[in-house]
Amino acid sequence: MSARVVCFGELLLRLSAPGRERLLQSPALEVRIGGAEANVGVSLARFGHRAAMVSTVADNALGEAAAGELRRHGMDTSGVRIAPGRMGLYFLAPGAIHRPAEVLYDRAGSAFALAAAEAYDWPALLDGADWLHLSGITPALGTNTAAAALAAARAARATGARVSFDGNFRPKLWEAWQGDARGILSELMAEADLLFADHRDMGVVLGGDYPQSEPLARVQAGAADAFAAFPRLRWMACTLRSPRNVDHHALSGVLVGRDGGTALAPREEVGPIVDRIGGGDAFAAGVLHGLIHGWQPERTIGFGLAAGCLKHSIPGDFNLATVADVEALVGEGRYDVRR
Amino acid sequence: MSARVVCFGELLLRLSAPGRERLLQSPALEVRIGGAEANVGVSLARFGHRAAMVSTVADNALGEAAAGELRRHGMDTSGVRIAPGRMGLYFLAPGAIHRPAEVLYDRAGSAFALAAAEAYDWPALLDGADWLHLSGITPALGTNTAAAALAAARAARATGARVSFDGNFRPKLWEAWQGDARGILSELMAEADLLFADHRDMGVVLGGDYPQSEPLARVQAGAADAFAAFPRLRWMACTLRSPRNVDHHALSGVLVGRDGGTALAPREEVGPIVDRIGGGDAFAAGVLHGLIHGWQPERTIGFGLAAGCLKHSIPGDFNLATVADVEALVGEGRYDVRR
Amino acid sequence: MSARVVCFGELLLRLSAPGRERLLQSPALEVRIGGAEANVGVSLARFGHRAAMVSTVADNALGEAAAGELRRHGMDTSGVRIAPGRMGLYFLAPGAIHRPAEVLYDRAGSAFALAAAEAYDWPALLDGADWLHLSGITPALGTNTAAAALAAARAARATGARVSFDGNFRPKLWEAWQGDARGILSELMAEADLLFADHRDMGVVLGGDYPQSEPLARVQAGAADAFAAFPRLRWMACTLRSPRNVDHHALSGVLVGRDGGTALAPREEVGPIVDRIGGGDAFAAGVLHGLIHGWQPERTIGFGLAAGCLKHSIPGDFNLATVADVEALVGEGRYDVRR
Amino acid sequence: MSARVVCFGELLLRLSAPGRERLLQSPALEVRIGGAEANVGVSLARFGHRAAMVSTVADNALGEAAAGELRRHGMDTSGVRIAPGRMGLYFLAPGAIHRPAEVLYDRAGSAFALAAAEAYDWPALLDGADWLHLSGITPALGTNTAAAALAAARAARATGARVSFDGNFRPKLWEAWQGDARGILSELMAEADLLFADHRDMGVVLGGDYPQSEPLARVQAGAADAFAAFPRLRWMACTLRSPRNVDHHALSGVLVGRDGGTALAPREEVGPIVDRIGGGDAFAAGVLHGLIHGWQPERTIGFGLAAGCLKHSIPGDFNLATVADVEALVGEGRYDVRR
Amino acid sequence: MSARVVCFGELLLRLSAPGRERLLQSPALEVRIGGAEANVGVSLARFGHRAAMVSTVADNALGEAAAGELRRHGMDTSGVRIAPGRMGLYFLAPGAIHRPAEVLYDRAGSAFALAAAEAYDWPALLDGADWLHLSGITPALGTNTAAAALAAARAARATGARVSFDGNFRPKLWEAWQGDARGILSELMAEADLLFADHRDMGVVLGGDYPQSEPLARVQAGAADAFAAFPRLRWMACTLRSPRNVDHHALSGVLVGRDGGTALAPREEVGPIVDRIGGGDAFAAGVLHGLIHGWQPERTIGFGLAAGCLKHSIPGDFNLATVADVEALVGEGRYDVRR
Amino acid sequence: MSARVVCFGELLLRLSAPGRERLLQSPALEVRIGGAEANVGVSLARFGHRAAMVSTVADNALGEAAAGELRRHGMDTSGVRIAPGRMGLYFLAPGAIHRPAEVLYDRAGSAFALAAAEAYDWPALLDGADWLHLSGITPALGTNTAAAALAAARAARATGARVSFDGNFRPKLWEAWQGDARGILSELMAEADLLFADHRDMGVVLGGDYPQSEPLARVQAGAADAFAAFPRLRWMACTLRSPRNVDHHALSGVLVGRDGGTALAPREEVGPIVDRIGGGDAFAAGVLHGLIHGWQPERTIGFGLAAGCLKHSIPGDFNLATVADVEALVGEGRYDVRR
Repeated sequence: MSARVVCFGELLLRLSAPGRERLLQSPALEVRIGGAEANVGVSLARFGHRAAMVSTVADNALGEAAAGELRRHGMDTSGVRIAPGRMGLYFLAPGAIHRPAEVLYDRAGSAFALAAAEAYDWPALLDGADWLHLSGITPALGTNTAAAALAAARAARATGARVSFDGNFRPKLWEAWQGDARGILSELMAEADLLFADHRDMGVVLGGDYPQSEPLARVQAGAADAFAAFPRLRWMACTLRSPRNVDHHALSGVLVGRDGGTALAPREEVGPIVDRIGGGDAFAAGVLHGLIHGWQPERTIGFGLAAGCLKHSIPGDFNLATVADVEALVGEGRYDVRR
Repeated sequence: MSARVVCFGELLLRLSAPGRERLLQSPALEVRIGGAEANVGVSLARFGHRAAMVSTVADNALGEAAAGELRRHGMDTSGVRIAPGRMGLYFLAPGAIHRPAEVLYDRAGSAFALAAAEAYDWPALLDGADWLHLSGITPALGTNTAAAALAAARAARATGARVSFDGNFRPKLWEAWQGDARGILSELMAEADLLFADHRDMGVVLGGDYPQSEPLARVQAGAADAFAAFPRLRWMACTLRSPRNVDHHALSGVLVGRDGGTALAPREEVGPIVDRIGGGDAFAAGVLHGLIHGWQPERTIGFGLAAGCLKHSIPGDFNLATVADVEALVGEGRYDVRR
Repeated sequence: MSARVVCFGELLLRLSAPGRERLLQSPALEVRIGGAEANVGVSLARFGHRAAMVSTVADNALGEAAAGELRRHGMDTSGVRIAPGRMGLYFLAPGAIHRPAEVLYDRAGSAFALAAAEAYDWPALLDGADWLHLSGITPALGTNTAAAALAAARAARATGARVSFDGNFRPKLWEAWQGDARGILSELMAEADLLFADHRDMGVVLGGDYPQSEPLARVQAGAADAFAAFPRLRWMACTLRSPRNVDHHALSGVLVGRDGGTALAPREEVGPIVDRIGGGDAFAAGVLHGLIHGWQPERTIGFGLAAGCLKHSIPGDFNLATVADVEALVGEGRYDVRR
Repeated sequence: MSARVVCFGELLLRLSAPGRERLLQSPALEVRIGGAEANVGVSLARFGHRAAMVSTVADNALGEAAAGELRRHGMDTSGVRIAPGRMGLYFLAPGAIHRPAEVLYDRAGSAFALAAAEAYDWPALLDGADWLHLSGITPALGTNTAAAALAAARAARATGARVSFDGNFRPKLWEAWQGDARGILSELMAEADLLFADHRDMGVVLGGDYPQSEPLARVQAGAADAFAAFPRLRWMACTLRSPRNVDHHALSGVLVGRDGGTALAPREEVGPIVDRIGGGDAFAAGVLHGLIHGWQPERTIGFGLAAGCLKHSIPGDFNLATVADVEALVGEGRYDVRR
Repeated sequence: MSARVVCFGELLLRLSAPGRERLLQSPALEVRIGGAEANVGVSLARFGHRAAMVSTVADNALGEAAAGELRRHGMDTSGVRIAPGRMGLYFLAPGAIHRPAEVLYDRAGSAFALAAAEAYDWPALLDGADWLHLSGITPALGTNTAAAALAAARAARATGARVSFDGNFRPKLWEAWQGDARGILSELMAEADLLFADHRDMGVVLGGDYPQSEPLARVQAGAADAFAAFPRLRWMACTLRSPRNVDHHALSGVLVGRDGGTALAPREEVGPIVDRIGGGDAFAAGVLHGLIHGWQPERTIGFGLAAGCLKHSIPGDFNLATVADVEALVGEGRYDVRR
Repeated sequence: MSARVVCFGELLLRLSAPGRERLLQSPALEVRIGGAEANVGVSLARFGHRAAMVSTVADNALGEAAAGELRRHGMDTSGVRIAPGRMGLYFLAPGAIHRPAEVLYDRAGSAFALAAAEAYDWPALLDGADWLHLSGITPALGTNTAAAALAAARAARATGARVSFDGNFRPKLWEAWQGDARGILSELMAEADLLFADHRDMGVVLGGDYPQSEPLARVQAGAADAFAAFPRLRWMACTLRSPRNVDHHALSGVLVGRDGGTALAPREEVGPIVDRIGGGDAFAAGVLHGLIHGWQPERTIGFGLAAGCLKHSIPGDFNLATVADVEALVGEGRYDVRR
């Protein structure tokens, strides 16, 4: 069962220090392509879905490389516009042990951020789509992209596509242009069928306070507020992450339904971590895969968590695992060489 | 005390993805030379023995490189034939955390597999040999190599060399030509003085069933069947491996004598693993080293397990550790920098 | 608050095997610059101090690169002499799991070792200095450097600079020229305000015996002997290191004052280790930073241990962490990506 | 003006020695994707055409990577079948000065070679196609692929697509299965509108002899024979290559029309060569581009030669140049940095 | 004889494709530090002068690395300010044979471009300076930097430092903010003692037309106009570059004095070129070195051209050659190994 | 026809800057094994001869790697002693265009230089040898190695092996210990059947003066003096090298017989050069190969020059070409891809 899923967001070049070095400790950078929504799209394409990217890239070799990398991994890039300007970049030093990974964003003024909302013909782009996937990063980039995200969500509603929205709250981006994070995110969440968010996102958007001592209770309280505020919303999902040190995290996953039913995927120990970036996006793609197939919540969140865990073993922003790879992990979890 | 040990088997090129990448995630492959029997031979050469390879390699730069690498590490390659054809290859993605290593064999139709059994002049090749080492991979490659392995084992018996045989059962290889695994392996094991095998191998070859709940008990029951079936057999040895995740295994070792006496090397925690390939071959070389020296079973299996553990810290298929390296580990196990 | 700290010692080139390979397993070496005193100096420069190197390097591209690397990280190299000769080298195979890192020194006959004690104009070099940092490696290199180290320490006393001395006892270096380690180290320690040493160093220098079962008690007993023997001494500090395996150590830190007061920084688990070399030097720089600021012993040793731990996450000999990096670790220790 | 061009042929992995090393001189291989027809297709896609690949790749990570690389550069891979088996490989040592590049083929028994002719649904695959591009390598791989190539050419004729055929005569491949090169190539050339071939190919297929002293005269005589033998044929094109040494060749291009009219692109000096592989395929794509646009022969052959020359400056098998890149070269040929 | 030379301009990170690849053909970038004025400064520092950089870098790891690299090569960076913002970048694909190198600038909105002219305390920064070196790139970046450059030049005049100005006309930068290139460049040239420029620059700034057929005559005519327009000007110098292809250029050098005297350094064949970037800056540093020493024009331009040629053999933007390296080339030009 | 050739000399590690960088421009070194006599030996082993190395290497991983590399390429290393000490090193920056390659020796005090002459059992080592190959570097290292070289030459005479001696005059090495170059080299040359040397060597050893304007005439005059002074000498051979720039040399070869007959291999243009080191040693091995086969002088010198030229295309110190590779070059010299 293959769905058509349209992802809208910025493509970024990740320039990372080799090995566990600090940035420019030696004079080389490894290049990966990423972006929260593209990460979800690539993972869904690898799961066999017809995933399509809608974005704007710079009219140069970097923009071309970014779109090419998505095609390489199976995404449809016919909806990726090419426009004058620069590509958003981020520099990454991956960290180790007690030294956290550091991300240095250099994405201001990108061709994507400057693209007018009208540049996208949503009815055509969403033609035949089953789902539209957005994240809170896109509206945080400025008025253009905020308007475009909202237009996309409303067009999805018009065409009957479901809307998946990943909170991904980034205060620094909003502050840079003094955007009304609360108002805009509320409008977007109001269109969502599926929300990747936890109580902290709900605190930002709805102003709630979550003093519960148990993480799960906080998530459930946040979900209750979300379902109350957003009548269209059907599911809220998130991971619970406990870093033991930079190389080793513990991860579990929660999926809450509108009826309050909560499915929990039990904690996995994840380490030594190869690449932590994109773990949340891989989880989101896994949950979407389960919902597309109409799986039970337990199976859905189990698949989502397994996908999220697997991502930590793969260099780069993309989860390149297939459904078989994820199911092997869910099913048995054998760790010796596969010959 | 240095023995002459002749190893017969295929040399393979391992083409592996860099770091923890998936295959061809980036456009580079690291090349290592390996092969179950060559791995044992190189380790024995590093331990100071006169280890000689008997094999057939392709008459091209790849075959030349394979033989050259054995010489570099001290093996005698005067018994390596050069013949038209291709080299056997395997592609490796090393895996990480929950993602198992994946091996993609591309070895069909190699110069080794096509070499006629008569191509090897066993009396000359085994001249002065103390041991012949074979594995279950060689007969699994087809009628030519099955005949050659059997001829080698029988020639060893004729010259008085002892025979070491590593089960290494690979069902896919046997299925490819519908070879009679059970019959051929039985014939080979019947010639062996030393068998590297566990209850699963015995299940395949002798049809036994091992429902014991304790791994050690299963191994001992398998060994009892082996000693009953193969009157020449004097020792059976194997590792017990418990993968905690892909990067961390626990490993112990067992050596059972014909008299039923069992020496156990207690569990070592092995992680984070650098390279798991060749761990069993390093163990086999360690056990052979102990038997060559006539050590007590406890010392022998301790040395074997230490050798097997050390291999996990060394990139490539070969255990490049020396006797001093292994004994440092057995003796004290200090882990700070050696200056 | 920025101090001027003068470091005197040899600059070395570290040539290390890539990844976790053994030396020359593949035909490449990574080059880093190091040296016990330079490591302390670079770390202090990164902490904002005016750190100056005094040394002698070879008049070739290697010597030039060594001095250039110190400048790159903020040290003043106007006190680095250039003289005919060779650079000291060391080859490093980093080890893994049960396989200890191996260091192969090739430093005999270096331009530094051959430089006459009179080559250094200490009053000028120490002009305005708050601290002089030395280690026990320098006098171990031969009569020239032993005389130079002593001249430096005495000149520091004359100018009013405090003296920091890191024991770093290396028996092999002393044996090579049959130097009087005990006598010379005693003379140097007699000039020190701050000593990085433990009971083992005190055993060497003062002949004491420390049969206490608890490591901390042994350190305290050693410190008591040191304060008794060296009236100028005000602080003694050291780390307590418990390697669990090559990739994972536990580390705590102790600072003992002349009044016997002991500050202990509790044990940190450090692993998987990226680069263990320079951990002690990073600790020393951290302790010096605390003393320069007049911090309480607890804060000082906490900062020192955090600095030492951080070093294990950074490739190369230098701790490139800033004060903010270290304080982030002391303060909270969050391990997720910093965006 | 964009045409739909369907390319049918094998995808190969090229494994090449780094720099100018011999194969396995150091233990690394660089991986590129290639194949005569894919090279033409990628170049046409980069020129803005709708280029589609028809092929069969192995059902493993290598086959996936090969198809992904074509998508990355803009080809449609929906016609690429996935089947059990292995991928064809070739090992390359690039050579230098007086040392010729060496290619070591390891392509026997590939999934492509084993695919039955009936596996391809040509009417569907050629739907809307303006051109079909084939080469003489495909029929040389065995009866399956010979039948498939012929079926493709005849289907093209049925749908009205033009047929482009690149002789690429490889005697070793034909000998391996004693295929009737002359008969099969004749049948294929009889379907071609455009033939990339020179007098040597005509000698093989038609048995002619070309004793003319001038290369151009030989080509023209060969072309005359080709037009006589193959009534459908409209154009024959080839390069004239004079290697001065391995790093420096001179290259010109010839296009002969059925009317005997000959357009010649004058000799270009090409060196120091970065990567010679794919030079002929880049030339073929350039000529096809001119014919698709209905350009005059002089402009067409000029563009073709410029494309062929540019390929020599680009690592890998593919010509990644755009139309603008090629036209910049034809137009003026300035060689300083483009800022 | 060592002069103090202050260089003012932007520091850039160069991110270049490895080998001769196109940008992002493989997922890696090599990082170098550059900038027209910094290139001159590093070369002068390597020649033994006290070269100091005045600039503004971003307050992040990239800015820190840029300043560190200048220190590594001997420049004084105490005049480099650290400010919020981004670093200017440029991406480079080096080209080959007929394929020109391509530079992709991504420098808009850098910390340097945004720094107010008042941020620099010129009297202090120029204290003791013998020369100030500027280029036409700095004023082209916007009003801030145009004002800063002019302030610097006037402050130099006030302190008695000579002014060296490299035209480096970049129309795209001026167009981006519609700056008055002609007016501003005129004002700057009016302050210069030494101008690196040719007739094309003079055409831009003074509006002259240079129809002479001989390059040298055009340069002389341009110089005549320059001396007429700018009474302070004493020397004008430039290279004459004839690219034969991308890997091979011919280069000569011209130095014209106010008296019309012209010194010509005869043409050198330069190829195969390793790195063409920074060739003009290396030439400028060489000419400055000659003028600082008061050499005759012939010796000065000969040294300048040799320095410029040598740069083409060194990877990166900097000419790392020493005076001895340059003089070896001027003197004899032996090309065999120096042992 | 395969000869047994014994080579005596030092094994060195070459540590070279990557690409065309200067030493330590980036923090990596490539490692190659070399040594004038080992280079000849490896080339002869690749030509099919039984080449054996006699040397002393350090008892560490570096010495082991050096010997292993010779075995890898087919040399017998049973005559390589292992002794305490260090390995000789040399650092190489390969140069480009006008920038000469630079070699930085760091070989003083090596295990080889310190080995006593008596350490070698020459009668045993030379058992069955057809040739002994020495060079002028070995006696230049000090009294030990001078005595050892002389002992080897005399033992060869005693056993009937012919002696090949390569002048390789290195004044710096002799000056370091004020060795009597003239006397010692004379003694060695007096034992030689074959001398690789030109008029400059003869000038050093015999004091002659060679004012002839033609290089060939100078060589012939030097040869005449050599044959007069050394009655045992039968052949003298050398290359004539004309560097056009660092990347491009022209090379011819001369072989003079005792009867004055001169065979000349005409000039080859060699460029762009990949690696110039070992070119003379490859030539020497080629000439030895011809003499072993009893070829005519023209064929011998032609083969020698072709071998020398080929070496320039191969990275590292060794000529890895086979006889077929060299003969392909002599025979026809085609430069296109070999498929």
